[in-house]
Amino acid sequence: MTKLYVAQGACSFGAHVAARELGLPIEFIKVPLRTPESPIHKVNPLGRVPTLVSDSGEVITENGAILPFLADLKPEAGLAAPAGSVERAQIQEWIGFLNSDIHGAYKPVNRPNLFHADEEVQKSIREGGIARLRDLIRIVQRKLEGKTWAVGERFTVADAYLGVFLRWLPRAGIEIGSEFPGLAAYLERYNARESVKAAAAFEAA
Amino acid sequence: MTKLYVAQGACSFGAHVAARELGLPIEFIKVPLRTPESPIHKVNPLGRVPTLVSDSGEVITENGAILPFLADLKPEAGLAAPAGSVERAQIQEWIGFLNSDIHGAYKPVNRPNLFHADEEVQKSIREGGIARLRDLIRIVQRKLEGKTWAVGERFTVADAYLGVFLRWLPRAGIEIGSEFPGLAAYLERYNARESVKAAAAFEAA
Repeated sequence: MTKLYVAQGACSFGAHVAARELGLPIEFIKVPLRTPESPIHKVNPLGRVPTLVSDSGEVITENGAILPFLADLKPEAGLAAPAGSVERAQIQEWIGFLNSDIHGAYKPVNRPNLFHADEEVQKSIREGGIARLRDLIRIVQRKLEGKTWAVGERFTVADAYLGVFLRWLPRAGIEIGSEFPGLAAYLERYNARESVKAAAAFEAA
Repeated sequence: MTKLYVAQGACSFGAHVAARELGLPIEFIKVPLRTPESPIHKVNPLGRVPTLVSDSGEVITENGAILPFLADLKPEAGLAAPAGSVERAQIQEWIGFLNSDIHGAYKPVNRPNLFHADEEVQKSIREGGIARLRDLIRIVQRKLEGKTWAVGERFTVADAYLGVFLRWLPRAGIEIGSEFPGLAAYLERYNARESVKAAAAFEAA
């Protein structure tokens, strides 16, 4: 059976949601992060989630790979689109933007200590990071204008992944309702999905 | 005709190389970056490269989207692999790792001013960035051990993209020959390709 390793509240939530959308027999395994004892190290030497182990034992990491791989397990669910289509490229474009820019922007916010040892400097790095994150979320809001989901009327793996970073905004002190009203309805639609509720309940348990 | 916007020495070099590997009629357009006068802003509001404009006028951005889209224009060239295959996932995994981790690690190295205004602090942010970059390049070297190309014996879009970041190493003061001998032969193979030579000559002109 395909196995998907996830951690509570991590960026693996997107793959977790996508996998639950498919309704396929996939085993979810919750692991702790950043501790040498975590079983994730036996599967992925980088100790990261999401990590997927396919039916045939192949290990796949990175959201940009796992999300389309999951979607392709059941193309008729329409979580991605055929190879070569502009729609598939648009889905990968969203995943790329989220993976590099948005996730990257959370790094100085959540872990400013990675950039400098001094605590005062860390504070200022974190503040700068929050400002850049705001700019990027403004871009997300503009890209979603007039749309139900990221690439149109259908929920895709791009949405499964985008929701993660909108759910993280309170960590950066950003209040979506007042600051990004255009995104609040999107996030409500996301949070109302059965897949999202099931994934959140599983990770919290 | 499909158009690909590139900038000299930017991360668009990977898409540029991939496009030249295909030998299809693709128009390459070299643009300057980070100046409001650049024609890129009329095509991509974020002002970034690579940006691809398809035959039918659709605009596609992000390496994670453009690289597989290019490969899918001519599947028989084998620059990617069929949707749903583990090999395609491995290619996207490389692209994701390069896009988020490796390209992200260059940010504090090339532009420490994004993180802090003080020049002394910037120096130390840059040094920390170089240390993290070294750790990541060590991972790349390990992943390539015993392999001709990133996912095996065939040059794919993962390689087109990986070569970019190895060519950037001198910018971080990292000397590949002495520090990463396992990667030197890979980079030689990369640099010897006609597509790489043609892309470099076009960008330098």
